[in-house]
Amino acid sequence: MRKSKEEINHNSVGLVIAKNQIINSSLKLDSGTTLKDYNLCYETYGILNKSRDNAILICHALTGDQHAAGYNDATDRKPGWWDNMIGPGKPVDTNKFFVVCPNNLGGCGGSTGPLSQNPSTGTAYGPDFPIITVRDWVESQNQLLEILEIESWAVVMGGSLGGMQAMQWAIDYPDKVKHSLIIAAAPKLSTQNIAFNEIARQAIRSDPNYYNGLYKTKNTFPEHGLKLARMVGHLTYLSDDILHTKFGRELKKGKIEFGFDVEFEIESYLKYQGESFIGQRFDANSYLLMTKTLDYFDPAEKYDGKLSDALKKCQANFLVISFSSDWRFSPTRSMEIVRALLENDKNVIYSEIESELGHDSFLLPIPQYHRILSTYLNKIAVT
Amino acid sequence: MRKSKEEINHNSVGLVIAKNQIINSSLKLDSGTTLKDYNLCYETYGILNKSRDNAILICHALTGDQHAAGYNDATDRKPGWWDNMIGPGKPVDTNKFFVVCPNNLGGCGGSTGPLSQNPSTGTAYGPDFPIITVRDWVESQNQLLEILEIESWAVVMGGSLGGMQAMQWAIDYPDKVKHSLIIAAAPKLSTQNIAFNEIARQAIRSDPNYYNGLYKTKNTFPEHGLKLARMVGHLTYLSDDILHTKFGRELKKGKIEFGFDVEFEIESYLKYQGESFIGQRFDANSYLLMTKTLDYFDPAEKYDGKLSDALKKCQANFLVISFSSDWRFSPTRSMEIVRALLENDKNVIYSEIESELGHDSFLLPIPQYHRILSTYLNKIAVT
Repeated sequence: MRKSKEEINHNSVGLVIAKNQIINSSLKLDSGTTLKDYNLCYETYGILNKSRDNAILICHALTGDQHAAGYNDATDRKPGWWDNMIGPGKPVDTNKFFVVCPNNLGGCGGSTGPLSQNPSTGTAYGPDFPIITVRDWVESQNQLLEILEIESWAVVMGGSLGGMQAMQWAIDYPDKVKHSLIIAAAPKLSTQNIAFNEIARQAIRSDPNYYNGLYKTKNTFPEHGLKLARMVGHLTYLSDDILHTKFGRELKKGKIEFGFDVEFEIESYLKYQGESFIGQRFDANSYLLMTKTLDYFDPAEKYDGKLSDALKKCQANFLVISFSSDWRFSPTRSMEIVRALLENDKNVIYSEIESELGHDSFLLPIPQYHRILSTYLNKIAVT
Repeated sequence: MRKSKEEINHNSVGLVIAKNQIINSSLKLDSGTTLKDYNLCYETYGILNKSRDNAILICHALTGDQHAAGYNDATDRKPGWWDNMIGPGKPVDTNKFFVVCPNNLGGCGGSTGPLSQNPSTGTAYGPDFPIITVRDWVESQNQLLEILEIESWAVVMGGSLGGMQAMQWAIDYPDKVKHSLIIAAAPKLSTQNIAFNEIARQAIRSDPNYYNGLYKTKNTFPEHGLKLARMVGHLTYLSDDILHTKFGRELKKGKIEFGFDVEFEIESYLKYQGESFIGQRFDANSYLLMTKTLDYFDPAEKYDGKLSDALKKCQANFLVISFSSDWRFSPTRSMEIVRALLENDKNVIYSEIESELGHDSFLLPIPQYHRILSTYLNKIAVT
């Protein structure tokens, strides 16, 4: 249904059109491959001020894209994935900041990725798209920054894999990040995190419709595998408590049926999550790539595993936020980042938000969480 | 390699041959289906004493079977699944006790299950084997008890799903269980537990080789699905800590390869677990059935969710054991059982064992754990 102007404009950045920026500088990736040129698809909200110092970079997580806020079309049912965070009067206040959200390289939102044409074959990259690291993303985002003629980001922020980018930015370009906001993240994946990612990958790659990643050429899609991968992922985003509160052991039809159809409400919910993800047409090769990016992230690796050494040259101020019931990237993991920053006498504020909503909390309008971000960002905007 | 007598006999119950007991009494299942007769395949260790009061029933968990101890053949590479627990001088001391371990109905170790012939069709049950409940298992085990002409079990014990059977026995036959040993169990699955089971089921059922459970008739097997299911299950049996200690972020080839082959040690381990499970030829339909049995288990359901009401008539003495790092059935869940028993003034000893080995701890020879069981069982044997 078409929305009225009032509906769209109230507290919303309104209708937005994604921009495509062809970047003609070559990009040498961590894997050794060089992209001669590439496209970054991105959205912006708010206005860049005259001194060009009010820009915020929003980094997306595993299944995110450039469409963080507002609507791409008046008939869209849902706004962008972080619409509760970004807009006029919202924590990331578009009356004050110029917000940039690119789709990450290797993604499927419009930036160069597995769906793009491989110049050396003339057909889509598919499974041959090189594996990207968080450092590669920072490099590509820096090329965008230069094209936008902005000297430095007022803020780089993101949740989960997005928080990892915010941290890597502060490490790689100390003079280009004033504030790094690292939300629901970790300095590297735990063994358990990697294991869950591997299960997701196995689910996709063992789907007979995966065809070693060449499913497009067979005009098919590894739907079952990707659905399973999403179900596993989603389950790890939610806490045991919230699952209990929301679904408990409630039965869809009120009684046990002694069969394999959906019986418990939680089964129905998981099925819905898997199917709606398929409905979003997220590319399976992109999903595989992004899980590898997560696995590889470990800024301390170059420094003999010493995170505090990796963070030594940072100049940014840091805000680190975790959520009490997040067992994917628990508060303990965020505290590792905080400790390493404190060992370097860096400016850091840490907050653990009480929430039973698990890892997904970072996407949700939890009052205490939004209040902290509003206060922090308002202070920056004023000074 | 053939084992010498010394190798087999040292601390071992030695060579054992499974027995098959056709039970000609009909069994009305919770699902409404009636089995006219059925087979229970079981092993026994030790000798039934003259007063026939030293019998221990061992109940197996999801992927267990009747082969709990010793060797079925001198060329076997591995002994039964609980060999560290059962044998001469071991916690379940076969010099003192007569140990009975049946394969559960619906299993694939030899008892009637999906691989058996369906009398009404003349072909294997496959997916048509009725879903079994823990109560059904207790009923079938009680029929075996009667055939063995034993009045009551000195002990019913098991870990995980086996512990649930030990609890159900004490509820259903208060006068036939002297001691109920409930290890690493819970009074019912949490929503998260059900969700992980549903993911395992979806993995199997969405494998194109599953053919709605009729894979045998197609001469195939849902190998990928079952492998994934096992990987998911296995991951939830291990704690984050032990994964970290055992595998960390170690790389198989010492460096990142930027590809999708096995890179991290944990990936290699998970793959091995999945594949070795396939090698054991566990039946996929049995796996599906057993996860449903787990989901349905909830003895308090009949009593308006009041576990203490469900346990009111129990006469057994209880030993409840949990493991500190078990996040599948955490100590909190065991405490729910203990609390409900205490509310009824039942005789209960509770012990939380310090272990970083997760849910799998119940299968492992952890000294404190074995010591507690030895002490407890020795005391029973003497008196």
